[in-house]
Amino acid sequence: MTVPSGGHTEQKGDQVESFQGRGGDGRVPVGVVGTGGMGGMHAHCLHRKVAGARVAAVSDLDAERAGKVAEECGGAVVFGDAVEMIRDDRVEAVVIASPDPTHAELVLECLRLGKPVLCEKPLATSPEEALGIVEAEVEAGRKLVQVGFMRRYDPQHVDVKNVATSGAIGEPVLFKGWHRNAQIPPGVDSEWVVINAAIHDLDSARWMLDAEVEEAFVRGLNTTGSGQGEYDLQLMQLTFADGRLATIEVNVDAQFGYEVGVEVVGVSGTAHTAPPSGAVVRLDRMFSQNVEADWLDRFEPAYTIELQEWVEAINGGRTPTPDAWDGYASLVVAEACIASIRSGNPEGVSVPEKPALYEKEGSVAR
Amino acid sequence: MTVPSGGHTEQKGDQVESFQGRGGDGRVPVGVVGTGGMGGMHAHCLHRKVAGARVAAVSDLDAERAGKVAEECGGAVVFGDAVEMIRDDRVEAVVIASPDPTHAELVLECLRLGKPVLCEKPLATSPEEALGIVEAEVEAGRKLVQVGFMRRYDPQHVDVKNVATSGAIGEPVLFKGWHRNAQIPPGVDSEWVVINAAIHDLDSARWMLDAEVEEAFVRGLNTTGSGQGEYDLQLMQLTFADGRLATIEVNVDAQFGYEVGVEVVGVSGTAHTAPPSGAVVRLDRMFSQNVEADWLDRFEPAYTIELQEWVEAINGGRTPTPDAWDGYASLVVAEACIASIRSGNPEGVSVPEKPALYEKEGSVAR
Amino acid sequence: MTVPSGGHTEQKGDQVESFQGRGGDGRVPVGVVGTGGMGGMHAHCLHRKVAGARVAAVSDLDAERAGKVAEECGGAVVFGDAVEMIRDDRVEAVVIASPDPTHAELVLECLRLGKPVLCEKPLATSPEEALGIVEAEVEAGRKLVQVGFMRRYDPQHVDVKNVATSGAIGEPVLFKGWHRNAQIPPGVDSEWVVINAAIHDLDSARWMLDAEVEEAFVRGLNTTGSGQGEYDLQLMQLTFADGRLATIEVNVDAQFGYEVGVEVVGVSGTAHTAPPSGAVVRLDRMFSQNVEADWLDRFEPAYTIELQEWVEAINGGRTPTPDAWDGYASLVVAEACIASIRSGNPEGVSVPEKPALYEKEGSVAR
Amino acid sequence: MTVPSGGHTEQKGDQVESFQGRGGDGRVPVGVVGTGGMGGMHAHCLHRKVAGARVAAVSDLDAERAGKVAEECGGAVVFGDAVEMIRDDRVEAVVIASPDPTHAELVLECLRLGKPVLCEKPLATSPEEALGIVEAEVEAGRKLVQVGFMRRYDPQHVDVKNVATSGAIGEPVLFKGWHRNAQIPPGVDSEWVVINAAIHDLDSARWMLDAEVEEAFVRGLNTTGSGQGEYDLQLMQLTFADGRLATIEVNVDAQFGYEVGVEVVGVSGTAHTAPPSGAVVRLDRMFSQNVEADWLDRFEPAYTIELQEWVEAINGGRTPTPDAWDGYASLVVAEACIASIRSGNPEGVSVPEKPALYEKEGSVAR
Repeated sequence: MTVPSGGHTEQKGDQVESFQGRGGDGRVPVGVVGTGGMGGMHAHCLHRKVAGARVAAVSDLDAERAGKVAEECGGAVVFGDAVEMIRDDRVEAVVIASPDPTHAELVLECLRLGKPVLCEKPLATSPEEALGIVEAEVEAGRKLVQVGFMRRYDPQHVDVKNVATSGAIGEPVLFKGWHRNAQIPPGVDSEWVVINAAIHDLDSARWMLDAEVEEAFVRGLNTTGSGQGEYDLQLMQLTFADGRLATIEVNVDAQFGYEVGVEVVGVSGTAHTAPPSGAVVRLDRMFSQNVEADWLDRFEPAYTIELQEWVEAINGGRTPTPDAWDGYASLVVAEACIASIRSGNPEGVSVPEKPALYEKEGSVAR
Repeated sequence: MTVPSGGHTEQKGDQVESFQGRGGDGRVPVGVVGTGGMGGMHAHCLHRKVAGARVAAVSDLDAERAGKVAEECGGAVVFGDAVEMIRDDRVEAVVIASPDPTHAELVLECLRLGKPVLCEKPLATSPEEALGIVEAEVEAGRKLVQVGFMRRYDPQHVDVKNVATSGAIGEPVLFKGWHRNAQIPPGVDSEWVVINAAIHDLDSARWMLDAEVEEAFVRGLNTTGSGQGEYDLQLMQLTFADGRLATIEVNVDAQFGYEVGVEVVGVSGTAHTAPPSGAVVRLDRMFSQNVEADWLDRFEPAYTIELQEWVEAINGGRTPTPDAWDGYASLVVAEACIASIRSGNPEGVSVPEKPALYEKEGSVAR
Repeated sequence: MTVPSGGHTEQKGDQVESFQGRGGDGRVPVGVVGTGGMGGMHAHCLHRKVAGARVAAVSDLDAERAGKVAEECGGAVVFGDAVEMIRDDRVEAVVIASPDPTHAELVLECLRLGKPVLCEKPLATSPEEALGIVEAEVEAGRKLVQVGFMRRYDPQHVDVKNVATSGAIGEPVLFKGWHRNAQIPPGVDSEWVVINAAIHDLDSARWMLDAEVEEAFVRGLNTTGSGQGEYDLQLMQLTFADGRLATIEVNVDAQFGYEVGVEVVGVSGTAHTAPPSGAVVRLDRMFSQNVEADWLDRFEPAYTIELQEWVEAINGGRTPTPDAWDGYASLVVAEACIASIRSGNPEGVSVPEKPALYEKEGSVAR
Repeated sequence: MTVPSGGHTEQKGDQVESFQGRGGDGRVPVGVVGTGGMGGMHAHCLHRKVAGARVAAVSDLDAERAGKVAEECGGAVVFGDAVEMIRDDRVEAVVIASPDPTHAELVLECLRLGKPVLCEKPLATSPEEALGIVEAEVEAGRKLVQVGFMRRYDPQHVDVKNVATSGAIGEPVLFKGWHRNAQIPPGVDSEWVVINAAIHDLDSARWMLDAEVEEAFVRGLNTTGSGQGEYDLQLMQLTFADGRLATIEVNVDAQFGYEVGVEVVGVSGTAHTAPPSGAVVRLDRMFSQNVEADWLDRFEPAYTIELQEWVEAINGGRTPTPDAWDGYASLVVAEACIASIRSGNPEGVSVPEKPALYEKEGSVAR
């Protein structure tokens, strides 16, 4: 095995060969950090459904859990320490699905080694931390980070985005998002709802309107009767550049099931995600379709496409998307949302000017 | 012909007979003020589709227009002056569809005469004016005014309301409304959009959540490229009693056509108005259904039911709904919305305590 | 009161006045035969929702039932004998909702008196009996019979028909119908299913394709487990003039609820009835909409429009539709369907040439 | 780190090892026969989206076309002769997408060599030819053939099947299928429509009802105005064991686009494939969703899953499904459909008893 980072440095813009020349079989050897729900899902998906890559290693503090996933994925190497795995020569690209507070540091380690990395959202626990990653990429002059906003690979979302960018409905002026989780995890608070759940919607709004947020106004409600005052239901109204608008329902204790949808209103028409795709059943005086239980259920195709496209971007030398800038900007908006919850007022959002490196999505770096 | 107003005064609480004993054929003789688009529609609907009433008279400054409608409605009497018509003994109930600034005065005239009146929205041009009507009813101790929020009779809206009140989805905590007109009328401004268009949605939100608004936050956008700064697209975020929430898209230049819909989110589920009911057509690489052109098209069944129920309420002695209080409270919220547009901040809404007269909808007065 | 038939004879082509000159208030006095489920529904609908007519009389063998309906409808006259009521001068138009075997005779009585009649389907119990009605109308040179195929007034069906006749989807070449009743009534057999349930679908197919049936092939199945061999589920394949086709599912023990729908396939596109129009509810891991319980529930608007249009046709001098020919032709096809069930083979259908009187639907007679 | 190939080799009797022991990297080396539209699609899909396999070779009479696909798939070996490629040691599994008349012979060659094969439909050009394949498998005592009825892997179809087999809607008693192609290929006839298009629907009906067909009745229509009498629109009514029923619309010149759907009616409810999953667009007085252009567009996910499951079945030692029996039985029904078109009568279908080898779908062979 060779040192992939070196290879990358020497062959900028020619990544195709750098990877395909190595693994013996042309498949990118991936290391997966974290083998819990998300990490295990990513590992299994890479092993069973994605061409052009293989699970070379997994790391987890829980050795038993890691060992089980490694075995199911064709005998991957098991590491107890994530950094050690990232540094290992047998790993040429990394998926990070460990707890949020570890994300930024592990991503920076990947950047130091020049290894492509797919990091689950949020990219960091604060805008400042995320900005550090952006700055590291800018300094290196190369984008290696993809953030796990998998909705950007969901066929229904992509279809809406395509309509929006086609010009068919005119300039997009209003984004409407709804995000409903069946059950709120125990012990979480209003901030968690913003940082861990709404962060997806903030990215969706930015993506669909292709603009940055300038103001956030958030009101919330506790629907659980727990009386804790934590807002499991939040209604966000955002103002973007040029006065464009967004409204987002984040509802993490919706009880009935899981659902995510978006609508983009343009100057002359609108487009929204399709109705449910499950079998339509007539039974017991009802027409019905099943609601998904959770995001793994709803976004299974999106996760597969996300990984497949990530691997193809690595093998094809394209840069990843959504990128570190998206991870950073979403956190800036999230911070303003939290401030609005606290102040009761609309709060301004200050997203700095986007570095040139991030200007064009999906293009080849340099 | 007898004197209907006298009859009413003498037989309070026994309206059934008061009307059925008079018209000769048991049908309420109705006078329609205004024979333009809305008034003509109401007159024709009363004549052709509603049992228990007949168009006895119409009034309009435009004598030719009035005469044409009168003839089409079986030979109604034509008046040039609305007040004169309202006072005429041959008219026992009144529909007001004249320009907005005339509404309050004409409604008050009906109240003085004890004649039931269905007044198109808005009930008045200011909360103060509307409060005068409420006070007049309270003083008389009797509800005679119904306001033309016809959505309350739209089967799709009623179905959502029934789900919300059934308890099936738990306590309603979030209202979502969207209201799209094909084309903005020329020369209107941001305030007109609130007072004339959004007023329907403000009433819907109050009705669906069965609560009063406490705060309004509104942002707007001009999508017509006219550069006038008037907001044809407005996004409203409302807070109700107990922290319940609403978001309303008012979009009076949506271009694609006319559409109105609502969703109520409850603690354990949601309910929204049905998908379009037109034929599903496969043609030219599309599945499609027609969008209605305007409110007359979309709400034709609702207008018919509204009139039918109004007539039955008169004949059956029930009190009307939505009532003057709904007309008043909607205007109070509208005023706060306009203030928020101007100030850029969320604005508090002060709806006074509801008089006992309005406590129970649809019950018999006194 | 005058003799309406005389009036009609004297004022051909000018029926408007003939009726409006009589009732005193311009409303057609209607007599309703039968005050059971269907008859009571028609009477109440006429009384409460239809302009231009009033319930003048009702007849039923069950005097108590008739008396109750009469009272609820504003004090109509009660008859024990249908023929006596039909002949009464106080009745100028008739609705027949008595048991099927009485239909033909009562319709013929109306024809003898020149009184317009709306007869519930089936028009008769055999094609021969129905042909007698057609012949009586042809001899009189005037169409007075409307048959209660209310789907022709259902807005969803009308919308599909309008698309089909607009030419948008090209020449209609295939009709697909489905007709599901929640529960099969006790004691009925395969023939009843054809004559009483499928008869609606046979009329729909003829109407949508605007053609007559030439061949019928029917297979059936007993789904109730009763082992009686009676077919509560029937699948009909019809061939029309020019080789056009139809497939009809008649399913009278569908259990889940009531549903009727149609699709018309044209040369370049298709159109089908809209999806359900009830509130869309998210609850308990399902998206759902209620299914109607039965035809009264599903077709309530259609029954109202049917009666309203019937009354307007009477008042406006237009001829009724669907007419006696539709009642007759549907029975001819039904007979062939029954023959196919028995023979196991496709059976030819011989509908005679349509008399000139029936050439144009909805036009003024003569 | 273990040596995966060694481990597998030690586990004889398990197909896993037999394949994974070869490729060096554990991926099944696949040879693709035919590099036209279908073959090229399969090759690219294997290369880009499927884990556990690689495109080792392609064959085509058109060397240039084959060479291009081979290059795009990572440098596969190119053969001019399909049999030569199938026999090559570098090929361990085969996808057949060459013209229909070659299918049976090539499949038999795979069986002789014991190589798993995925054959595009139809499995053969006659029931007799297909029976030869079934007999060869029975003799070998092992199922190696999967037939390309990709709908069995379409998530929407699978969801309906799952509802049907769950028992929720009771015993399935009626299948309804519709199959619409945008344009009929030039020069094809009524038989082609049955053998090449309807064959999918015949398999769907068998699959959904889990039963064999006993009678077929088919009527057709030429909608192209070509006057050739060839039936581009066919309506099929099938009777299955126990009297269960099916109706199938095959419409190969539907013009508006491509669409396939199924509904299963059970004793107590029904289930049908979901509505379209594309973005819902409001524009120009329409709500619309795009219709797919063709089967490659509509069934892209199904083709990917089909290949992925085929590869996993090979690697996991499971037997393939749908199998040679399904390919054979569908052809028997197709033959009866053609006979019915010719005779104008319902025609009996004689499917022999299913050999024990095919009793359980998806089970491990031997």
